[in-house]
Amino acid sequence: MPTYTAPVKDTKFVLNEVINMQKYANLPGFQEATPDMVSAILEEGAKFVEGVLQPINLSGDQEGCTRHDDGSVTTPAGFKEAYEQYVEGGWGTLTMDPEYGGQGLPHTLATAFEEYMISANMAFAMYPGLTQGAIASIDAVGSDEQKKTYLPNMVAGKWTGTMNLTEPHCGTDLGLIRTKAVPQDDGTYKITGTKIFISAGEHDMSENIIHLVLAKMPDSPDTVKGISLFIVPKFVLDENGEPGERNSLSCGSIEHKMGIHGNSTCVMNYDEATGYLIGEKEKGLAAMFIMMNAARLGVGLQGLAMSEVSYQNAVTYANDRIQGRSLTGTKDKEKKADPIIVHPDVRRMLMNSKAFNEGSRALALWGALQVDLTHKAQTEEERQRADDLISLLTPVIKGVLTDKGYENATNAQQVYGGHGYVAEWGMEQFVRDARIAMIYEGTNGVQALDLVGRKLAKDGGRGIRTYFEVQQSFIAENKEDVRMQPLVEGLEKGVNDLQAATMWFMQNAMQNPDNAGAGSVAYMHLLGLVAIGHMWAQMAKTAFEALDGSSDDPQFYENKLATARYFFSHLMPETAVHRARVEAGSETMMALAADQF
Amino acid sequence: MPTYTAPVKDTKFVLNEVINMQKYANLPGFQEATPDMVSAILEEGAKFVEGVLQPINLSGDQEGCTRHDDGSVTTPAGFKEAYEQYVEGGWGTLTMDPEYGGQGLPHTLATAFEEYMISANMAFAMYPGLTQGAIASIDAVGSDEQKKTYLPNMVAGKWTGTMNLTEPHCGTDLGLIRTKAVPQDDGTYKITGTKIFISAGEHDMSENIIHLVLAKMPDSPDTVKGISLFIVPKFVLDENGEPGERNSLSCGSIEHKMGIHGNSTCVMNYDEATGYLIGEKEKGLAAMFIMMNAARLGVGLQGLAMSEVSYQNAVTYANDRIQGRSLTGTKDKEKKADPIIVHPDVRRMLMNSKAFNEGSRALALWGALQVDLTHKAQTEEERQRADDLISLLTPVIKGVLTDKGYENATNAQQVYGGHGYVAEWGMEQFVRDARIAMIYEGTNGVQALDLVGRKLAKDGGRGIRTYFEVQQSFIAENKEDVRMQPLVEGLEKGVNDLQAATMWFMQNAMQNPDNAGAGSVAYMHLLGLVAIGHMWAQMAKTAFEALDGSSDDPQFYENKLATARYFFSHLMPETAVHRARVEAGSETMMALAADQF
Repeated sequence: MPTYTAPVKDTKFVLNEVINMQKYANLPGFQEATPDMVSAILEEGAKFVEGVLQPINLSGDQEGCTRHDDGSVTTPAGFKEAYEQYVEGGWGTLTMDPEYGGQGLPHTLATAFEEYMISANMAFAMYPGLTQGAIASIDAVGSDEQKKTYLPNMVAGKWTGTMNLTEPHCGTDLGLIRTKAVPQDDGTYKITGTKIFISAGEHDMSENIIHLVLAKMPDSPDTVKGISLFIVPKFVLDENGEPGERNSLSCGSIEHKMGIHGNSTCVMNYDEATGYLIGEKEKGLAAMFIMMNAARLGVGLQGLAMSEVSYQNAVTYANDRIQGRSLTGTKDKEKKADPIIVHPDVRRMLMNSKAFNEGSRALALWGALQVDLTHKAQTEEERQRADDLISLLTPVIKGVLTDKGYENATNAQQVYGGHGYVAEWGMEQFVRDARIAMIYEGTNGVQALDLVGRKLAKDGGRGIRTYFEVQQSFIAENKEDVRMQPLVEGLEKGVNDLQAATMWFMQNAMQNPDNAGAGSVAYMHLLGLVAIGHMWAQMAKTAFEALDGSSDDPQFYENKLATARYFFSHLMPETAVHRARVEAGSETMMALAADQF
Repeated sequence: MPTYTAPVKDTKFVLNEVINMQKYANLPGFQEATPDMVSAILEEGAKFVEGVLQPINLSGDQEGCTRHDDGSVTTPAGFKEAYEQYVEGGWGTLTMDPEYGGQGLPHTLATAFEEYMISANMAFAMYPGLTQGAIASIDAVGSDEQKKTYLPNMVAGKWTGTMNLTEPHCGTDLGLIRTKAVPQDDGTYKITGTKIFISAGEHDMSENIIHLVLAKMPDSPDTVKGISLFIVPKFVLDENGEPGERNSLSCGSIEHKMGIHGNSTCVMNYDEATGYLIGEKEKGLAAMFIMMNAARLGVGLQGLAMSEVSYQNAVTYANDRIQGRSLTGTKDKEKKADPIIVHPDVRRMLMNSKAFNEGSRALALWGALQVDLTHKAQTEEERQRADDLISLLTPVIKGVLTDKGYENATNAQQVYGGHGYVAEWGMEQFVRDARIAMIYEGTNGVQALDLVGRKLAKDGGRGIRTYFEVQQSFIAENKEDVRMQPLVEGLEKGVNDLQAATMWFMQNAMQNPDNAGAGSVAYMHLLGLVAIGHMWAQMAKTAFEALDGSSDDPQFYENKLATARYFFSHLMPETAVHRARVEAGSETMMALAADQF
């Protein structure tokens, strides 16, 4: 049975020493997030996910969700009770608006907890995760009445939410959707259509499910410009605002998926279901994207979380499993073989994960801080700057963290040898669960295109220019520090590759947009390495400073330095091949006619 | 439902035009393998796998194998009947010794068929695959009587075989095995122990199952030097050589695996089962390695085969699925969107697979030819040279083709977006099935260590020196050809990186063996890229020559050239980062104490 221990110490290191949350104590929500409060929440959160969610992860995968003949869905044993505890603990209310019963704490802090929850049980974490997305959309574009009607119960967790975008024939290209919304005399709409891949579409955890559904009105253009967003509750509310009549929508089937079996992924059929327009007519996609951007950061976290939990188990196994002898001579003479952690290639897999996990955790929390600053920073300039940075980095955090999360989960499984392939050990579940994160909320190819095709050029390239300034000022500040030099040089090389690749796009993608598409994934990974490298350089700097002071835990900081050095010696050099791929352009990639494959 | 079409045309191109099988028509077995014969076998083989094996692949995954209370195992619906057709068609006899009922054809030809069989149904292909391995071991080390007793029925397919190495506590380090073989007065042995991960360990397809089992005799050293090999039949043969008394061995359970559900992977319990020593006492491991080396090449083929079948389906989907518009302007105005094959990133994934598949197919068939030459070439020098080359390349073919096969299957799944995650579409099965090939027959880390720790140094480095000569003479011969120049330069850059990495090991691995281990996987992939690049350069040369002549299918050769150019522009540049990783050494990788992970 796999295990999980929330990396509270590492999270606190990032929050308190690297991104330094306390610096923002003057901002709303941050003043309450004192180091003691942060510590208490993380430790309670760890207890909850370790004690309640993790023990039902493997069993949840094996049992899966069951759809009954009446269309109702039962979640795996323990999920309903765990959700009750989640609600009782107020875990869904951390960042929510106090007006609707939330605690108003920083998104940064909730992100830390969210990572733990996903590592412990990704399929479970999706239920509240989607609710949070739905709340964000209602909060952003709903009327005051809609907010008052839906948000308190959703924030409290009594009701959950979903997002309904995809249809059998369209996902990425939502202009093609066919679901119809026909206006009624009473101001409501009749929603009719089929939506697929609806996570948490039907289940037994909550009193009501608030579906947010994209549909087209009869007089709207049949394109991406004709899409509106609707609230379609499972139970239409009665005059007291309580769940009343059952709406004419149902779960037609549960998808048979590669993983996340504990999550009820539904085909949802809407058959003249009662819906309410939310936001402006034909502005549905914009409203949904509010939800989507937050969701993409959440999916990036899934990549990190699967990498972390699979890594932890691989470490345990690598220390327990004895097999063969160290290349440099026997390490444990008492035993008939050495633990496999003595083998460099096992180390390589563990160090790859470790360097990624700690670097990406810092990046994800830094990203969450930018989200907070976008809303809460004191000046418009600061808010704009944070928004520029997180807009640029959102596709990178989603795409790179999930690609690498899957790769690292696969490597962690590899550490187990044949046992990694056997279900009981739990490692293959991490791989199967991690796989979806590369696909949903926009495939990673779509993320890369969003980055290269939209974010780079947005506002005359202000985001990437700001980002280069951040990097360059860090490099300039630390280059002369002898201890930092080898790391800063590694970062600088990566930044140079990133600049060259950016320049190449500027010179070659205007005349042929395929040149942007062809290099987009390589560019995304190049930027991801630089972003994680930047975090590692900052963490190393923090570690040097802590060791200069009177740290009572020098080993922790020495460990950080060793891992930083590994990142720059073994992972950062990949930027060169990403740059080479960008500069190779689209010519050979697009040379064949479609029927020549 | 996924589909599969055996790439007969491409196979014939490699056999007839690239490695030029006809050149060896003077060797035993090759004279029968005329182009017409090769064509007939490949086309019949294609018909068999497409019509019989592929249709039961997805259903076989979903149904899996069933162990009954009496320990018997039922394979998925259709497997038993398909196996009967396999036997009737004589597909298992292609390369077998005519003395035991085989057709004596080249291994090269059988390898081509084997790829098809795996693409169509990997779980099925493992049943005869293991039998062939068992036959090879019995043929190599068995007594004449043992050969006569077992081989005819095994060659005919009436009996199947297995290999029993792994135990719960040991896989890679076989010195730790505990299974005991106690000599009896009648010259037989009583075998007692538990073996795990035994593919095809128990099933309903054959009249008997001949287990080859590693065990230690009571007076043997309890190390790797004390292992002997035993024949342990499911039914002990009676005086007529027919299956008689049921031996005291049984399938204790079927493993719950990530994939290859159609293959019965058993925990096998031996409880004083009757066994027969095969080969010399305490030379069991060497005997098993005869089987293992052939098996490793077969596992490499699994990587290629999963990449090929997943690619074919991704191509179909990319041409069918309409979503979004081309970056360079609408391609299909009649439709509401363009097929996704217009998008560069979809192309990237397809081209990565295509360039790998065709390059690796050539490499695998070239490798199979070396196996044939090892046995059949006319002079000792030629046999030695072939053996040197295939010894060096076996871990590369196993490790690189399976790592890349999994990566490509994952990419092919990615082309499907959300549908790729849903079982009915069949893509996720290819990923799950492909995963095991990186693990069994020695994990890919073990392959890399075999390459760097044993094969590089073997016979004073004769293998790698020979291989460099092959590359360099090709480069020298073709460098002046203007058309070949860009490709040859790409190859040369890769060869230079490989030489530098080899040199680095020579200078740094003696003083610290961890430097070899740390760079082993990077080196394996570097060598793999060079090996596949070499094949692409040869295929390009062949294509240029064909186009200079009066080819009646110029498009086929133009397609080869376009794909070769893609390989060198987008894939070959990776050699630089592999070299950088080798040269980064083990220092940062091994810096942390084991308890610091």
